Amino acid sequence: MVGIGVIGFGYWGPNLARNFSQTDGFELRWIVDEREGRRETARRQYPNVQLSANVDGLLADPDVDAVVISTPTNSHYSLAMRALEAGKHVLVEKPMTTTGAEGRKLVEEARRRGLVLLVDHTFIYTPAVRRIRQLVQSGEVGELLYYDSTRINLGLFQHDVDVLWDLAVHDLSILSFLVDEAPIAVSAVGKSHVAGAPENIAYLTLVFDGAMIAHINVNWLAPVKIRRTIIGGSRKMIVYDDLEPSEKIKIYDKGVDVAETPDEVLMMRVNYRIGDMWAPNLENAEALRVEAGHFLDCIRNGVAPETSGEVGLRVVKVLEAATLSMRLNGCAINVDTLEPKDATP
Amino acid sequence: MVGIGVIGFGYWGPNLARNFSQTDGFELRWIVDEREGRRETARRQYPNVQLSANVDGLLADPDVDAVVISTPTNSHYSLAMRALEAGKHVLVEKPMTTTGAEGRKLVEEARRRGLVLLVDHTFIYTPAVRRIRQLVQSGEVGELLYYDSTRINLGLFQHDVDVLWDLAVHDLSILSFLVDEAPIAVSAVGKSHVAGAPENIAYLTLVFDGAMIAHINVNWLAPVKIRRTIIGGSRKMIVYDDLEPSEKIKIYDKGVDVAETPDEVLMMRVNYRIGDMWAPNLENAEALRVEAGHFLDCIRNGVAPETSGEVGLRVVKVLEAATLSMRLNGCAINVDTLEPKDATP
Amino acid sequence: MVGIGVIGFGYWGPNLARNFSQTDGFELRWIVDEREGRRETARRQYPNVQLSANVDGLLADPDVDAVVISTPTNSHYSLAMRALEAGKHVLVEKPMTTTGAEGRKLVEEARRRGLVLLVDHTFIYTPAVRRIRQLVQSGEVGELLYYDSTRINLGLFQHDVDVLWDLAVHDLSILSFLVDEAPIAVSAVGKSHVAGAPENIAYLTLVFDGAMIAHINVNWLAPVKIRRTIIGGSRKMIVYDDLEPSEKIKIYDKGVDVAETPDEVLMMRVNYRIGDMWAPNLENAEALRVEAGHFLDCIRNGVAPETSGEVGLRVVKVLEAATLSMRLNGCAINVDTLEPKDATP
Amino acid sequence: MVGIGVIGFGYWGPNLARNFSQTDGFELRWIVDEREGRRETARRQYPNVQLSANVDGLLADPDVDAVVISTPTNSHYSLAMRALEAGKHVLVEKPMTTTGAEGRKLVEEARRRGLVLLVDHTFIYTPAVRRIRQLVQSGEVGELLYYDSTRINLGLFQHDVDVLWDLAVHDLSILSFLVDEAPIAVSAVGKSHVAGAPENIAYLTLVFDGAMIAHINVNWLAPVKIRRTIIGGSRKMIVYDDLEPSEKIKIYDKGVDVAETPDEVLMMRVNYRIGDMWAPNLENAEALRVEAGHFLDCIRNGVAPETSGEVGLRVVKVLEAATLSMRLNGCAINVDTLEPKDATP
Repeated sequence: MVGIGVIGFGYWGPNLARNFSQTDGFELRWIVDEREGRRETARRQYPNVQLSANVDGLLADPDVDAVVISTPTNSHYSLAMRALEAGKHVLVEKPMTTTGAEGRKLVEEARRRGLVLLVDHTFIYTPAVRRIRQLVQSGEVGELLYYDSTRINLGLFQHDVDVLWDLAVHDLSILSFLVDEAPIAVSAVGKSHVAGAPENIAYLTLVFDGAMIAHINVNWLAPVKIRRTIIGGSRKMIVYDDLEPSEKIKIYDKGVDVAETPDEVLMMRVNYRIGDMWAPNLENAEALRVEAGHFLDCIRNGVAPETSGEVGLRVVKVLEAATLSMRLNGCAINVDTLEPKDATP
Repeated sequence: MVGIGVIGFGYWGPNLARNFSQTDGFELRWIVDEREGRRETARRQYPNVQLSANVDGLLADPDVDAVVISTPTNSHYSLAMRALEAGKHVLVEKPMTTTGAEGRKLVEEARRRGLVLLVDHTFIYTPAVRRIRQLVQSGEVGELLYYDSTRINLGLFQHDVDVLWDLAVHDLSILSFLVDEAPIAVSAVGKSHVAGAPENIAYLTLVFDGAMIAHINVNWLAPVKIRRTIIGGSRKMIVYDDLEPSEKIKIYDKGVDVAETPDEVLMMRVNYRIGDMWAPNLENAEALRVEAGHFLDCIRNGVAPETSGEVGLRVVKVLEAATLSMRLNGCAINVDTLEPKDATP
Repeated sequence: MVGIGVIGFGYWGPNLARNFSQTDGFELRWIVDEREGRRETARRQYPNVQLSANVDGLLADPDVDAVVISTPTNSHYSLAMRALEAGKHVLVEKPMTTTGAEGRKLVEEARRRGLVLLVDHTFIYTPAVRRIRQLVQSGEVGELLYYDSTRINLGLFQHDVDVLWDLAVHDLSILSFLVDEAPIAVSAVGKSHVAGAPENIAYLTLVFDGAMIAHINVNWLAPVKIRRTIIGGSRKMIVYDDLEPSEKIKIYDKGVDVAETPDEVLMMRVNYRIGDMWAPNLENAEALRVEAGHFLDCIRNGVAPETSGEVGLRVVKVLEAATLSMRLNGCAINVDTLEPKDATP
Repeated sequence: MVGIGVIGFGYWGPNLARNFSQTDGFELRWIVDEREGRRETARRQYPNVQLSANVDGLLADPDVDAVVISTPTNSHYSLAMRALEAGKHVLVEKPMTTTGAEGRKLVEEARRRGLVLLVDHTFIYTPAVRRIRQLVQSGEVGELLYYDSTRINLGLFQHDVDVLWDLAVHDLSILSFLVDEAPIAVSAVGKSHVAGAPENIAYLTLVFDGAMIAHINVNWLAPVKIRRTIIGGSRKMIVYDDLEPSEKIKIYDKGVDVAETPDEVLMMRVNYRIGDMWAPNLENAEALRVEAGHFLDCIRNGVAPETSGEVGLRVVKVLEAATLSMRLNGCAINVDTLEPKDATP
């Protein structure tokens, strides 16, 4: 039995606590939240779990093997680092940290200690995204040409992070699940409509070395809710609408074939291919339950984490570059230029 | 009766010819197309109209007061200039020219000669766009916060212009119809998926001086057709879906109100306002017919053109800046920096 | 504090228990279910509530003022009657009984004893249906011309009741909430596709004395889920789509105006009126919570029940007539002809 | 070359004239319409075609092999009969006649003379309906369980026929294309909301001998336009939405499997099967062009008409029974009971 403690029992923490308490193999032992009211709520739901306003008891408890961190983003690094130093496996909410530098330290600490560091990029554990990856990896989609996502709705305005760190983070994790290579340049433009608050609208474009381009449109101030991603491949195209109750994924046998006519090199003929559409049935698994099972598998059986610290770091680095690009009104930023220029690489 | 000649009888020319031939006050006298087959088609539909493979006869004909140019973009400038020099009023298809320099010359020539120069930005004459402008100008929408447009579908790949010049041009004309000020910076990123061809996917963002930001997503390689523009205002928000058979415009009484609590300057409360939605009934007018009537009004009564050469020039200048930004992977370009640095302003 | 007991803790009972336990003014004292497993589930959720496999203790308990019955339909009558005879107020799941005769007895018993008899026609307590009634009663919709409902999906096949008693019952309760008069004739046609099982598809039409006609299409074997009701009025028309996350109600200013030309009596001119569409914002109330509050109001303050036993009886009588019509392949049945032919009316 | 004449140049006639004039093998020789204005319109479009206010010249012309009748329904019988008697092949608009008795006479006359009698049930020639038939006939759909169609919109109110004869006629022709057997009973209920006018709302249900049931909901007074047919089969289900620009047909691998448990004969287990959805690409053929080609094939090559007089008669007989049922508020009518009771069968 893997003993587990949940730090942060606000908006998302209760979902994590519920899923871990219901997953065979885990035993929920601690819930930590500095707010008395939240602890009271936790007490009623989990009468046998230890409660505390701080992490000291949890980190010192030898029956705790792993901690789940669902606190505000700016506390992720220090809490995760303390947990790793206490020898605990860590599952941390997304985004993993607020800077790439912090993220790198967590990744290194976990590696050094041989501990699991998993980032809660929940979408990766949904049946829809897993099916899309299968379609991409099997070659059915062909070469990836573009990823174009719209993730807009009214609210919830965040005070500490901008809309990229809140919403685009999902697309960046999905992208890194589908595409091995990192973007060579990141361009973002955004706007804040509330004085003193972070950007509530942003447009992020990622340029890759090959045929691929990715674009993410996020907005907290939209009158309609849209969660739609179009993935264009050389053989098939996918429309993924996460708000569809069924048929979340539609696969289109559409595209273009280019024929060059030999004598006229400047002339080309684009032929449109328009075929059937197909919506595979998806199983009804709850993503957090799948993720909890995977965390157990990583801890017990040494399985490689699908949303590892490295993945979390890659996402944070793109967000960092995007924020900088946004300050520069869209100037392309090379993700790796933000790395410290170490004398010893 | 205003005598008129149509130059170019390819894809769009027949629509122009039909509308002008059916608008009281115009008399269609010439159709010019260098292709014998197109002239033959024109002959059958308009047996009483003069046909020619070149514009010489048309331009020399004193009974022709105005010409309509619907040829490939790269011939617009020279044909429009010749027509103006021959003393004809000009309606030219969008985009007006391929460069701002050419555009400026047309505008100046028309002004000097007192001739009407109208650009065929057809969307401006649709009931939907006119209603949106009315909602904006009446103050009902409040301060404009953003314009976010998605204009994607499969095909038609163009050989000579990229997807911005083909599709984003519509949004740029609508934008200039809604917003008086010009953008201070333009950022665009795009990709071509056909070797040797212009970009078939592009993302264009326009930054304005005040609260406004505009974003245009255009794509010739999408499996689904989308024509959806969201316009966010401080009081109301509009969703304009041009593919809806009815209810093209939906107005949402949604938004946020920001309340700062006095003691905690760093803390703010965003209150969401969620009210009714309303879809005004739109009349069923054909845009080209409205445009033809407006052209007549400009010629006869000296009415100021709604899609004047100045508007067409403003659109071309943004497209020019966007193309440059696209080459630089999104670097923000100030539209006016592309103006020649004249010694005499 | 009104003491309450819930009989039946299967599919719907837990929702009732939850809402009553969370409504101020009620105290949940008993949960009765003959299945050990269901009692065990109830025990975990409500450790302080008394549990029993039968109703004897509950009905004998002087601290219980009201009972909620959510058992299979064929047990409603006997349980409700025993509860009324024990002096308890009763809330019974829909449909109230399996026959009009039973329903009439319950209504009479409740009236004689001055007890509240409420039927759980939940839709009546939704913000959408309440708004529709307001639009109808205020005269905004004009004279009601038709009610046309489609309520189809895959499953859940019932073994004891047909699809009319399972799904059309919702529309019949909504109808009786909107229209005072009872239908003069009922015609239904249906089909069972599972040998030995009740009809899984049925089409029910209700004819009224005046302009009104109502039609209900119910189906357990449909590949898509639809919950859409169109309500036509002489002044406005409403489309109510219960699956829409927002904008459940759309009000169309559409209709026809008929003009008769004096000389040609056989000729008439139908003019179409096509105006704006409007979707009012609806509050986010949970129907069962509203219903629980209303039950309390009826018990404490003598408010007249909105889904009274009389309403429940009216619904059952239409269902009874519909079942008979279905056996006769659609023959119109007068609802009142099924009443016993008493010598003394 | 098959010489052809079109009788009736009102709403639909111009479409027929255009398609026949553009189909190789036909030569359009006559257009007949008693209205001077319509003849004038025809003259401009077809300067070489003979025009007349009556059919005498057309029927006497030996160069006319076939006539197309697109006049009001009540003139179909006499015009078609005169044309057949003059030895012409006939294509007549739907519905073929106003009574079954008339229809039978046309069928017999055409058979006796060996002439083609085709009814313009246009939907049968659409790619969507043809694909549905292929899915049904190939066995992919399994046994047909139900056909449920909604065909509603605002207008056009007809003065001489009710909404069943105007709209349900389409579904009845599609049904007879999919199902060989005739319904054993027809039940319809309807309502007129305009004094003195025929029913503008009607609900028609057809009962068949086996598992099949069909239902058609037609309405001229609906605020939204719907053209949606659900076809349930034992193996697959089809949703056909004629308003979808693409993906008109969606095929769902959904259904139920029934397992009876041996010891409990009253108990059964319904298992739901939920699989993929699939939307085949459909070719872009214009139905009237296909129909014109088929008419030619029938005339020249003796191919059996797909929408023969017999089909047209079957449709008219159901409509006749439906009208009678509607007068009786839904009483089931056996289609064949309306046949005259001949002494010699």
